[in-house]
Amino acid sequence: MAGNSYGTLFKLTTFGESHGLAVGGIIDGCPSGLEMDINFIQMQLNKRRPGQSAIVTPRDEKDKIVFLSGIFEGKSTGTPIAFMVNNNDQQSKDYSALKEVFRPSHADFTYQTKYGIRDHRGSGRASARETLSRVVAGAIAQLWLKQFQISFQTYVSQIGTIKLDSKATEIDYIQIEKNEVRCPHQATAQQMIELIQATEKEGDTLGGMVSCNINGVPAGIGEPVFDKLHAELGKAMLSINAVKGFEFGSGFSAVSMKGSEHNDAMVIENGKIDFESNHSGGIQGGISNGAPIYFNVAFKPVSSIKKNQSTINSNNTQIEIEVKGRHDVCVVPRAVPIVEAMAAMVIMDFMLLQKVYK
Amino acid sequence: MAGNSYGTLFKLTTFGESHGLAVGGIIDGCPSGLEMDINFIQMQLNKRRPGQSAIVTPRDEKDKIVFLSGIFEGKSTGTPIAFMVNNNDQQSKDYSALKEVFRPSHADFTYQTKYGIRDHRGSGRASARETLSRVVAGAIAQLWLKQFQISFQTYVSQIGTIKLDSKATEIDYIQIEKNEVRCPHQATAQQMIELIQATEKEGDTLGGMVSCNINGVPAGIGEPVFDKLHAELGKAMLSINAVKGFEFGSGFSAVSMKGSEHNDAMVIENGKIDFESNHSGGIQGGISNGAPIYFNVAFKPVSSIKKNQSTINSNNTQIEIEVKGRHDVCVVPRAVPIVEAMAAMVIMDFMLLQKVYK
Amino acid sequence: MAGNSYGTLFKLTTFGESHGLAVGGIIDGCPSGLEMDINFIQMQLNKRRPGQSAIVTPRDEKDKIVFLSGIFEGKSTGTPIAFMVNNNDQQSKDYSALKEVFRPSHADFTYQTKYGIRDHRGSGRASARETLSRVVAGAIAQLWLKQFQISFQTYVSQIGTIKLDSKATEIDYIQIEKNEVRCPHQATAQQMIELIQATEKEGDTLGGMVSCNINGVPAGIGEPVFDKLHAELGKAMLSINAVKGFEFGSGFSAVSMKGSEHNDAMVIENGKIDFESNHSGGIQGGISNGAPIYFNVAFKPVSSIKKNQSTINSNNTQIEIEVKGRHDVCVVPRAVPIVEAMAAMVIMDFMLLQKVYK
Amino acid sequence: MAGNSYGTLFKLTTFGESHGLAVGGIIDGCPSGLEMDINFIQMQLNKRRPGQSAIVTPRDEKDKIVFLSGIFEGKSTGTPIAFMVNNNDQQSKDYSALKEVFRPSHADFTYQTKYGIRDHRGSGRASARETLSRVVAGAIAQLWLKQFQISFQTYVSQIGTIKLDSKATEIDYIQIEKNEVRCPHQATAQQMIELIQATEKEGDTLGGMVSCNINGVPAGIGEPVFDKLHAELGKAMLSINAVKGFEFGSGFSAVSMKGSEHNDAMVIENGKIDFESNHSGGIQGGISNGAPIYFNVAFKPVSSIKKNQSTINSNNTQIEIEVKGRHDVCVVPRAVPIVEAMAAMVIMDFMLLQKVYK
Repeated sequence: MAGNSYGTLFKLTTFGESHGLAVGGIIDGCPSGLEMDINFIQMQLNKRRPGQSAIVTPRDEKDKIVFLSGIFEGKSTGTPIAFMVNNNDQQSKDYSALKEVFRPSHADFTYQTKYGIRDHRGSGRASARETLSRVVAGAIAQLWLKQFQISFQTYVSQIGTIKLDSKATEIDYIQIEKNEVRCPHQATAQQMIELIQATEKEGDTLGGMVSCNINGVPAGIGEPVFDKLHAELGKAMLSINAVKGFEFGSGFSAVSMKGSEHNDAMVIENGKIDFESNHSGGIQGGISNGAPIYFNVAFKPVSSIKKNQSTINSNNTQIEIEVKGRHDVCVVPRAVPIVEAMAAMVIMDFMLLQKVYK
Repeated sequence: MAGNSYGTLFKLTTFGESHGLAVGGIIDGCPSGLEMDINFIQMQLNKRRPGQSAIVTPRDEKDKIVFLSGIFEGKSTGTPIAFMVNNNDQQSKDYSALKEVFRPSHADFTYQTKYGIRDHRGSGRASARETLSRVVAGAIAQLWLKQFQISFQTYVSQIGTIKLDSKATEIDYIQIEKNEVRCPHQATAQQMIELIQATEKEGDTLGGMVSCNINGVPAGIGEPVFDKLHAELGKAMLSINAVKGFEFGSGFSAVSMKGSEHNDAMVIENGKIDFESNHSGGIQGGISNGAPIYFNVAFKPVSSIKKNQSTINSNNTQIEIEVKGRHDVCVVPRAVPIVEAMAAMVIMDFMLLQKVYK
Repeated sequence: MAGNSYGTLFKLTTFGESHGLAVGGIIDGCPSGLEMDINFIQMQLNKRRPGQSAIVTPRDEKDKIVFLSGIFEGKSTGTPIAFMVNNNDQQSKDYSALKEVFRPSHADFTYQTKYGIRDHRGSGRASARETLSRVVAGAIAQLWLKQFQISFQTYVSQIGTIKLDSKATEIDYIQIEKNEVRCPHQATAQQMIELIQATEKEGDTLGGMVSCNINGVPAGIGEPVFDKLHAELGKAMLSINAVKGFEFGSGFSAVSMKGSEHNDAMVIENGKIDFESNHSGGIQGGISNGAPIYFNVAFKPVSSIKKNQSTINSNNTQIEIEVKGRHDVCVVPRAVPIVEAMAAMVIMDFMLLQKVYK
Repeated sequence: MAGNSYGTLFKLTTFGESHGLAVGGIIDGCPSGLEMDINFIQMQLNKRRPGQSAIVTPRDEKDKIVFLSGIFEGKSTGTPIAFMVNNNDQQSKDYSALKEVFRPSHADFTYQTKYGIRDHRGSGRASARETLSRVVAGAIAQLWLKQFQISFQTYVSQIGTIKLDSKATEIDYIQIEKNEVRCPHQATAQQMIELIQATEKEGDTLGGMVSCNINGVPAGIGEPVFDKLHAELGKAMLSINAVKGFEFGSGFSAVSMKGSEHNDAMVIENGKIDFESNHSGGIQGGISNGAPIYFNVAFKPVSSIKKNQSTINSNNTQIEIEVKGRHDVCVVPRAVPIVEAMAAMVIMDFMLLQKVYK
């Protein structure tokens, strides 16, 4: 109810402020007997970590995960999996200046208004450091989904005005991890990197787009009416910090298409059911049809800019501020594992639910 | 869990197939003592009804609502409000031809795969007739929200390629109900109507966009992390039939903006907190900031077209079909009250929740 | 949240006041393809019905069920099953006298205090007529559980001071339905009937005990920690009108037993796991062990007595009242199908959940 | 869903096995601004701790609590409160002998059957060490409830055959903490202690009863129908390890009472509403009536006895075992803070909910 849990059968509850002792979570509902590949989980975490390359923030948080329960002799036991990552980088002194200030387009003002109190160090609970726990749970979901050959291809398709031009079917996904911006087209990636570098010099920041394909989801997954598969994917993505929009399949382009263009004709291809197109993005009536699921997630530019801005303080006085500290110019490459994690959690939850109702 | 409920404190559970005895629902958690303005509820239902004008399907479903419980002497009692609308228009003979056929881009194939059985008459449970129950619950939510001066302006901003050009702040909302397509600009509305008429002659269908402003939501509404206000709005909208995408505030356009352009500077205006821009769409960190909330919802074109299409039947044989019967060319004008209803339910639920945690 | 739903995967939401238009409910989460034996459901409802015999209230409510959705060609479709029973016996005139009066040990005062408004006709929402909907959902759960050979034996083990003396293992359950009080021992049943008749002449009322055995539940059902199988059974039983206590297995008698007496030794009997005793009542650590599950439910005497009582009215004035109208002297025999229904819903819900986590 | 969470608005999720790294939990939904009296929380924990007196197990677990999040400058912030207690006493060598053995009336067999894997050290997840987290959450609930003058009196009313004879209204509650068994009558307490000592010499164990009064709950708390206040209290109590039964108010004694004896007449006493008796236990129709709430909880004797017992191992072979190690003869005195904690969580959750619906 209070907003810190995600999922129903495979349920993650997270805790932690950016400058408290630790961040972490509890996963309740992980089936027993799952081999816990800790290296894979840590590898996913490392993709989210700040300081992983020259173009993202140079803080090295390390983010070494500790599991406290729910795993015995390398396998899940069916009991809650609790985990935590210590906050080594608690430079609280950096933040004291902002105690009474509401930074523009941050959650400072809204948290203060909602709760009447807030941990002002960093962004407190509103910090994207919380997403670390999502990546852990998502990695575990991916481990579980492997038995069904369900896989994820997640990448940066736009940064600022630089757009990946390829269609999903033409992309060479092996390229994703071959550059710092996680764009599967090296020339485009290079342009994105250059844009980030130029923008950093301006003291400004950039938004971007993350795209995700999910392959191998069988037909019949998702619930009707209110808990449609794409509605839950949408909620999961919109819950990620800085996200402004979500579209799946044809998405916003469907608005100006005609029914005869948009409908995905069904055919029998080599004795198997197939679709001549996939504007549906693998989902019809909220339920998967067996075709690949794909969607886009829009991120706004980072709010912490090194430029003078008007804002107010807690005395309702208008002031000028400039946000100090080391901040990402563009978080979109680091959002890739978060988008993937949330997608994996959604798919696992619906796969588990389908075991009930099939 | 099984997808037929929405909301937590103000919770709607719906039932009914398009050609069963009735559709309806139960609202659990409506506060007691609310004056039930049945005329307002019926008026909202009428906006959703087919046959309301020349350009939408001529079936007259009437859709007269009956309340079964939870109301005593004109007020809510705090107990469940059950309601139903009989299905008078059960022309089951129209649908027998489709018993073994999966219509392209409909939910026929996915429901059959998921459940192993389906009510093939109309679209059964996947019919948009289910949204009738949402409109009832949303209208009740609007009645409750009036005490806080929270209001909704919902309109069609695009049909096919015809787009409303005005900015939200320039729109004369009083125009919305003055034309059949619910576009608050009469000349644009006329173009949309002409496009619908032309497309009907082709036997084809159209998609479109619905936009919504919510005024009067106080700062502090919404939950952090997973249940962000915009994430729940997104899920609510994506759960509506035919929706392909959702964006709020700057939405997808934020992708190519810089932080310095996108940030909403805070100012003190006549002694009150204000924002110089509203790219945040009234929501920061998932919590309302007191500025107007606004969002767009993308609808795909109607799947039932009067053209020959390839599809398969339940024997996995490829066949050709043409969907018969009276269908809307464009449902987007009828989606306006549904979008508004879902928005009202989301806001009411979070307003109730804030009573707990404030 | 607002108290009108039960279950997680197999979920019932009920509606209706005793003198409104109808009572009924929606079941969400019934697996598809279940043959709906309407006769069995109506038969269970008839067991709950007032007026079924000389010793219970002579109103003949009939209680004919109507299904509105979720069933197609005799089978469940996986979509919500909505049902209702009209309230034919709306003798509202009987109740006007009680509009401003709070009957002792009824819910009149507490509902009025909680909601600030109440439907005073009959007991409104607090009426036991609501349990009708539980019997419907429980009967459907029993239909589903038959595939696993899970069965229920539910009977009256005490009325007032008259107690069934036999151990569970000695009882001839075939006798339950052979007398009006549902006690599986004819001589004891006769004593109970005589006690009821004598108490009726006094204008007084009686409490009693319902006992239930559940056979065939496999080992491994139930969840650890907070959602223990017996904790959920306890909640389900305590939610029934007039219930004051719940015990399972050895129950309250365990308090004065020693560990060496109470422990259920495990043995191998004919190559199969067995228990030398069953003080555990078939549940250890909240999870079924394969032995029969059994429990007792204590009911208080009916609150509506034909004797003069002190109470207060809505003006906080002390007054004397005598409750008029036809009321049961003892509802315990009619509670048998309700206890059985709630037990079936609990077991089905946990059986479905075990499909997820096994 | 998987059983490790309790509550709706004030929600606790617990984690940890008895011999893992730590046990702890996350509380989501604690209102912001609550002064966190860590001493009080630790004091409640100490009441639950083993080794606190001569008659309970001499292991000194210390159980020092660490808060990881949700508290800032001594107050709750409204964000999740995560906490943990390290398991210092991980004598895993003690338990290796039991790896393949199912101890009688323990959860070994049922967990193994349910999950196909279990942490056999101690009782793993089924260990009562988990209740430590409940005591923390319950103590926080008590801190919050103090603003409404809601208080709890929880005590041992029976151990084995030794029974406290006083009525609730005669008890001098100040005596509770003045003896090791938490019985508020010193002579009875002495008898209980002697019984425990004698039973320990036999190598046997004892059950008992915990009673609880809750004072100050206003009328109108609790939800109707399925989530009745006493139904939720019952579930909460039955979820505690070793509990076999729950009764509130008149409880099981109501079975043999008549309506005229049992009804609680309402009177006006000094201008205020009062009840001449309190068989209702402060709850009518599932909703509090303002009178004190009281209930009893029955505990079975400890399953770990120092006597030879028949059981089976994981090869389905019948064997003899004697449970080694230091175990409590009677856990009932240590259950007092756990019963109180669960009661406080239930009341707080319903108090929060009433803020919504009032």
